[in-house]
Amino acid sequence: MSLDLARIRAAHERIRPHIKRTPVLTNDALDAACGGQLFFKCENFQHAGAFKSRGAANAVFSLTAAEAQHGVVAHSSGNHAAAVARAARLRGIPAYLVMPHGVPGPKVRNVESYGGQITYCEPSLTVREATCAQIAAATGAASIPPFDDYRVMAGQGTATLELLEDVPDIHVILCPVGGGGLLCGTAVAAKGVRPAVRVIGVEPTLADDVAQSFQTGQRVSIATPATVADGLRTNCTGEKNLPLIRAHVDEMVTVSEDNIVAAMRALWDALKIVIEPSAAVPYAAVLEGRFDARGRKIGLILTGGNVDLDALPWITK
Amino acid sequence: MSLDLARIRAAHERIRPHIKRTPVLTNDALDAACGGQLFFKCENFQHAGAFKSRGAANAVFSLTAAEAQHGVVAHSSGNHAAAVARAARLRGIPAYLVMPHGVPGPKVRNVESYGGQITYCEPSLTVREATCAQIAAATGAASIPPFDDYRVMAGQGTATLELLEDVPDIHVILCPVGGGGLLCGTAVAAKGVRPAVRVIGVEPTLADDVAQSFQTGQRVSIATPATVADGLRTNCTGEKNLPLIRAHVDEMVTVSEDNIVAAMRALWDALKIVIEPSAAVPYAAVLEGRFDARGRKIGLILTGGNVDLDALPWITK
Repeated sequence: MSLDLARIRAAHERIRPHIKRTPVLTNDALDAACGGQLFFKCENFQHAGAFKSRGAANAVFSLTAAEAQHGVVAHSSGNHAAAVARAARLRGIPAYLVMPHGVPGPKVRNVESYGGQITYCEPSLTVREATCAQIAAATGAASIPPFDDYRVMAGQGTATLELLEDVPDIHVILCPVGGGGLLCGTAVAAKGVRPAVRVIGVEPTLADDVAQSFQTGQRVSIATPATVADGLRTNCTGEKNLPLIRAHVDEMVTVSEDNIVAAMRALWDALKIVIEPSAAVPYAAVLEGRFDARGRKIGLILTGGNVDLDALPWITK
Repeated sequence: MSLDLARIRAAHERIRPHIKRTPVLTNDALDAACGGQLFFKCENFQHAGAFKSRGAANAVFSLTAAEAQHGVVAHSSGNHAAAVARAARLRGIPAYLVMPHGVPGPKVRNVESYGGQITYCEPSLTVREATCAQIAAATGAASIPPFDDYRVMAGQGTATLELLEDVPDIHVILCPVGGGGLLCGTAVAAKGVRPAVRVIGVEPTLADDVAQSFQTGQRVSIATPATVADGLRTNCTGEKNLPLIRAHVDEMVTVSEDNIVAAMRALWDALKIVIEPSAAVPYAAVLEGRFDARGRKIGLILTGGNVDLDALPWITK
């Protein structure tokens, strides 16, 4: 069974008690600057500070009692780990989290606040997956992959269901891309509800594995993406994700590091919200003029807000 | 005619096309920390970044055509100035703004972005009012006072109407206090809709003119309040405000500078929002344990989000 609209709707029913209905913000000055109308879906306000709570809740609450009895294990650059720890706590089972060295402090504390047990490892996907497999073998915990999983993708797609309920006549949705879990959920939800919506994935140029994979049809891997967007440092496109992305996504766009930081700051200033660099990536595409925004209604998924307030990228100490 | 619920409801109808219905945010971790349930009314997302857009819109759109024909004049530490400039532009009339030296850059740019014409002066209320009077005499502009005005208070009270629509069973409302315009609107709206609501005004200890006036019944003036909460540096309680405050406000509480900064940072971290120091003042009262939050539903008005992102109070360069 792959991913379809029915599965995303079922996920929405399943996770509704466990997630927030996040608001959609707008801003006159940002609209005037681009000539379109921008609708920001604020998943930075989601539980645990990121959309990842949606996919994690769907996956954890999809487990049978037998599957769940020894807990869950996941690897993550931060937000998926916190979301899995939170969902596991809600279900009353242990959570084992594998995280790469160098994750921002607030993301680590976030995991700890939900009682997650952390194991650190090297940042490559291979090492992360191997560490997960060892923990699963030792504990019997069920794996909750960060993106290469239909339950997770279905949960992530629920943000777009809500966005299209609030703003039914959207023309374009811009979505940040790490491994492609949110992008798959977004694209399948959007095309299912409103086939005319154009779905654009946006990646940092320094972490453009999905853009390359999208072009070639082959899963491309990037050694150690050095982007400021720490949530998008995933160095490989998901195996289940790539065919869905090629089937449902209209375009992949990449943006520079400078514009990610400029976009982050512009959104803090105008919208009065705290978002992490990854969440600013779609607006960076607007700033770069990578597509024609004029006269269009554009949805942007603001993916998370877990950022170190002592280490803002525009402040040099 | 003084201030009553009917006047606040009429203001809401009048300004509805010109303001945002701002969301109310909640957070599990903040609730767990205080033992109550906190409901944050996000006026930092309001047009021009502050609740001041409500009172300014009500005052400017209450003017007759004859009164409005030569524009409007206002003095303000920043947010009221931007709100008046915005309302005047919506009505198609000029706006003259008197602002004290030392206002944060973003607040100045905010005024300029709406086409407001700025005159700088010394920060005392006497000088600000005298400068306004000179401009009014020279131009014929109508004065829009920042707080000592029933039209302005009525507009500010509309935030509380919305808060009580969204969360009808609130026990306590915490409100930051500068000159007392928001506090009067909040108290009259809250007691009118739900007499059992307890209304608490919160001030920086360094700018406790309203707390002193509340105690003594005499309008107290403080030379130059040095608080980090730049929006609350008003050095005098409004003449029309004091009787309303004494009639409808249950308690005044003051908080330290350290706790204002700690509260500001805690709300950025937990709620993922940008608020200015003034907006953090009510949560500082929660942090200080200045009243028993346990088991109560507590509304907090987050007044604004216009802050210099290069000069955050917890970062020492």
